[in-house]
Amino acid sequence: MRIDAERISRDIEAIAAFSEVPATVGYSRPTFTPAWAAARDYVIAEAKKAGCRVWIDAAANVHARPASIGDDAKVWLSGSHIDSVPTGGKYDGVMGIVAPLEVLRVHPNAPLELIIFAEEEGSTFNLGMLGSRAWAGTLSAEELSKLKNKAGMDPLTAGKPYGLEPDKLAADRFAPSKYLGLIEIHAEQGLAMWKNNIPVAVVTAINGRKQYSITLTGQPNHAGSTKMADRNDALTCASEIIIDLEDLGHALDAESDHTVITVGQLNVNPNSINVIPSRVVFTIDFRARTGAVLDKGDTRIKNIINEAAGRRGITAQLVMTESLPEVPMNADLIERIRRAAKTIGVDPLPVAASGALHDSAILAPLLPTVMLFVASEDGISHNPAEFSRIEDIATATEILAAAVTEAR
Amino acid sequence: MRIDAERISRDIEAIAAFSEVPATVGYSRPTFTPAWAAARDYVIAEAKKAGCRVWIDAAANVHARPASIGDDAKVWLSGSHIDSVPTGGKYDGVMGIVAPLEVLRVHPNAPLELIIFAEEEGSTFNLGMLGSRAWAGTLSAEELSKLKNKAGMDPLTAGKPYGLEPDKLAADRFAPSKYLGLIEIHAEQGLAMWKNNIPVAVVTAINGRKQYSITLTGQPNHAGSTKMADRNDALTCASEIIIDLEDLGHALDAESDHTVITVGQLNVNPNSINVIPSRVVFTIDFRARTGAVLDKGDTRIKNIINEAAGRRGITAQLVMTESLPEVPMNADLIERIRRAAKTIGVDPLPVAASGALHDSAILAPLLPTVMLFVASEDGISHNPAEFSRIEDIATATEILAAAVTEAR
Repeated sequence: MRIDAERISRDIEAIAAFSEVPATVGYSRPTFTPAWAAARDYVIAEAKKAGCRVWIDAAANVHARPASIGDDAKVWLSGSHIDSVPTGGKYDGVMGIVAPLEVLRVHPNAPLELIIFAEEEGSTFNLGMLGSRAWAGTLSAEELSKLKNKAGMDPLTAGKPYGLEPDKLAADRFAPSKYLGLIEIHAEQGLAMWKNNIPVAVVTAINGRKQYSITLTGQPNHAGSTKMADRNDALTCASEIIIDLEDLGHALDAESDHTVITVGQLNVNPNSINVIPSRVVFTIDFRARTGAVLDKGDTRIKNIINEAAGRRGITAQLVMTESLPEVPMNADLIERIRRAAKTIGVDPLPVAASGALHDSAILAPLLPTVMLFVASEDGISHNPAEFSRIEDIATATEILAAAVTEAR
Repeated sequence: MRIDAERISRDIEAIAAFSEVPATVGYSRPTFTPAWAAARDYVIAEAKKAGCRVWIDAAANVHARPASIGDDAKVWLSGSHIDSVPTGGKYDGVMGIVAPLEVLRVHPNAPLELIIFAEEEGSTFNLGMLGSRAWAGTLSAEELSKLKNKAGMDPLTAGKPYGLEPDKLAADRFAPSKYLGLIEIHAEQGLAMWKNNIPVAVVTAINGRKQYSITLTGQPNHAGSTKMADRNDALTCASEIIIDLEDLGHALDAESDHTVITVGQLNVNPNSINVIPSRVVFTIDFRARTGAVLDKGDTRIKNIINEAAGRRGITAQLVMTESLPEVPMNADLIERIRRAAKTIGVDPLPVAASGALHDSAILAPLLPTVMLFVASEDGISHNPAEFSRIEDIATATEILAAAVTEAR
């Protein structure tokens, strides 16, 4: 039996069918919903068919390792997430689950444990990588209890039917001694590999990320009777800042490749056609490869906001909502992946950097970790039009198989 | 009995007390709600106390004229609106109602009819000056039936308990032959008069207005993994357009005073912190004093949008949702107001232009019409902090009294 692209494709399509909305709109599997649970159950059933023992840890992550391998035997960990953003695509983290599943089918005694991390995207509770953080012990039951989904439910309540057990989080915590390392396969979600015709690459680092929430407060005057010169318009101020941040993103990217700055969320008050906006609240998502660039950008972002707000008579309030350092991947594991690639004729395996955060970033400080990226057509991601070639996913799966079955 | 600032102040405070929200938050009287109706009932009761006959026309506007004056006798019309934007101020249109009310108290046989126009602001059904338009015959029952408030109710249904009778609109329509002219008193809602220490001014023209809805469509990619150069970000495109429109507003205002351009409403999709915005929908409100400036601005607005969108790989769709020409005030009536002002020692009465639209703009093409503006502190309007001096409102009321009681 060999790694089979057809079988991998069937797994992806089977999981895609579990969605809250029709495929014409996208693929929606918010964590702790029936669609998400059904997709998870499919993987559990397939892993059992492949001869695995399956359990769910107290953070609601699913684990599957060959029944022939004991609980305490040291194995490779490989997996990703099955939850999606609203109306997302088919491939994203799903490929990182079906790849180790296929390896377990083909190598039923491989020292390999499949993991499905619970809630990676962050779109359900406004915080990403919940399952890996809770398992790794960097997110407590108390912190979890403060998060809320759109229905106002916290993850402890919403996750209870799916195995989340706050009382057992400590006892069930991730134990590095049980694992040789983590290998996560994921879609690149960017254009770089597709544009440069690179089907699969090994990731050398995951970008650090700072996120901010900014509130600009001006004066809500009448749009018809307030002269241009007499305005304190919070939206024109926000617009100037957004353009300056875009320029800053380009400038920092030129200095340090893969630096990005995004304003993704913006809300206007009173948001009325004939009232000058008095309040604009928006987010900034800033990612870069090195702490030096993150620090430099942080200073420049604050200057841009204060300068524009000061000049326009607008009050600006900035809150940093997240600050995650850059995460280098394990050098020995990068070498192991390169050797594995060579055995299937991919030599040299190209390298990539991850602009997106992944569960790997949570475990990397605790366990040798590496990621394999598969090219995303036109860089489209978090979108029903997302596409990766099945043959590329199969190539990554073969590299994973070779890496976990390598003798040394 | 003389025009009494104290009594005017009591009227304003009494009407302010009818609000959907506490005064600390603002004054909210959406049309066809209990708060709005209670304010209207207060004016009706006061007008009756002053010896008026009161009726409500089929468009739900309230009329009060001295009982001593017959239905068909030609009188002056004076009034404004009692509805407010959500969390608006106390003065806005209210001063335009309490002024003729006070004139009717002091001159119980004056040839004067007080009118409360229903729904001027446009914030309830997303279309302003409903009452005056329906009365003037420029808005049909069928058109009214297509509008909706936040509860999804059309004005015909919402207005029925308050006197709106679609079947009688035609029979009850405004008859120019019954009126000598319309004099509307209103807050300026801008900074110009306050800044230049002008308490009361006669309006020579109401600006024309064009409104647009713009939809920008880009690509909803991942904020972390999509390089700056590979983006089609609908929000950075909108930001560039907003800054260019602000510049255009300043440039056209320098050419033709009181030209304004405002982006008041803007919504982002998917509006998620880590997704590049794929769609931004926003409005433009553009006002100017002459058709030439309106036409020139229209061309420039379209060029700005198409240029930015084209360069950024964004699809832009522009719909003009309204186009109202500028409305000059009646020259003879302006003269009458000036003479009236002179009799109370205001000489010469300064002139102003109205950036905002008013019910006067609807009736001006059908009836000699003029407006009197009262200065707004710091130009603040549509805001609980709105303030006009009671003595200035009393001055405007005295001018109104002198104008409607002038012998010739």
